[in-house]
Amino acid sequence: MQTLTVKTERHTQLVDVTAQIQSAVSASRVANGVCYLYVPHTTAAITINECADPYVARDVEGALDRLIPAVGPYQHGEGDSDSHIKAVLVGSSQIVFVEGGKLALGRWQGVFLCEFDGPRERKLHAKVMAD
Amino acid sequence: MQTLTVKTERHTQLVDVTAQIQSAVSASRVANGVCYLYVPHTTAAITINECADPYVARDVEGALDRLIPAVGPYQHGEGDSDSHIKAVLVGSSQIVFVEGGKLALGRWQGVFLCEFDGPRERKLHAKVMAD
Amino acid sequence: MQTLTVKTERHTQLVDVTAQIQSAVSASRVANGVCYLYVPHTTAAITINECADPYVARDVEGALDRLIPAVGPYQHGEGDSDSHIKAVLVGSSQIVFVEGGKLALGRWQGVFLCEFDGPRERKLHAKVMAD
Repeated sequence: MQTLTVKTERHTQLVDVTAQIQSAVSASRVANGVCYLYVPHTTAAITINECADPYVARDVEGALDRLIPAVGPYQHGEGDSDSHIKAVLVGSSQIVFVEGGKLALGRWQGVFLCEFDGPRERKLHAKVMAD
Repeated sequence: MQTLTVKTERHTQLVDVTAQIQSAVSASRVANGVCYLYVPHTTAAITINECADPYVARDVEGALDRLIPAVGPYQHGEGDSDSHIKAVLVGSSQIVFVEGGKLALGRWQGVFLCEFDGPRERKLHAKVMAD
Repeated sequence: MQTLTVKTERHTQLVDVTAQIQSAVSASRVANGVCYLYVPHTTAAITINECADPYVARDVEGALDRLIPAVGPYQHGEGDSDSHIKAVLVGSSQIVFVEGGKLALGRWQGVFLCEFDGPRERKLHAKVMAD
């Protein structure tokens, strides 16, 4: 298991971590297999979506903020219930295939750590298993 | 594959199943690997989020109930379309790493079976693969 | 890694691909293991839910279309921001266990490719690893 560190800069932010994860895959020396990704936080998540136009990530951030209001009839006393709910909707784990030592992402796909209660320093665990 | 049984008590309920899953991991005798979790139901799901303060799970339940109305322009005749939609949003599978025989959860993380059409008795499949 | 091709016919459409994935599992000759599913697109996703009554999939489509408006305060210029957001909410990867050469789905479960910007021809990657 490798652990990456990701610095986030805004309260809600999708951070493109594709290059860092590719480095972890390269370090594993696995040619063909599965890369497992896991976020050990409860107000952050991981997703795979378009990285070509950064406005897509911004639109996802805005949509999630509109969908889950910051102020609601919440009982948790820390004021970040919306962050937890967004993390549940996006999810804390993903898999990507590895082919020829590279993440087998689609043409427009990148991997994003999703910050929902930043700015913070976050961790992202990655493990690569050979076929 | 091990199958856990989970009794739910409310219509929408996140049930902390971390201890049961840790028992399954321990029974597998795998020291380092990946634990795969799978819910074989269409109105239940699985998520990983904060288990320290139970109000977080309650806030997730409330937010999902407000997000997906019980009464909508639905065509499915059984009256539980909202339960199916919530299950799609949260998802039926998750992975967690295993390190030193323990689930490598983050400090505040627990695993929750998400009931969206309870109360019921649910099943949760777990499989642990060694590195 | 096997790649399946799926033709979609509507803008938002859940297409039942269970039979195609079972064929990929059978072709792998794996008796017991894990089937990994991955969608290499940024406006499509993959989910597991009820396939017995096709109205359930229609209700999921309608709910997602109502939840994420086609017209919003979006910055991405291609007019498909809602499709990307839906893909993030549903997710691009899933796992299903394989037991006795068969997908270990629940009684009412099927696997659906989720089209959010169709009609199109989509790809779906599958890999089966033995225990």
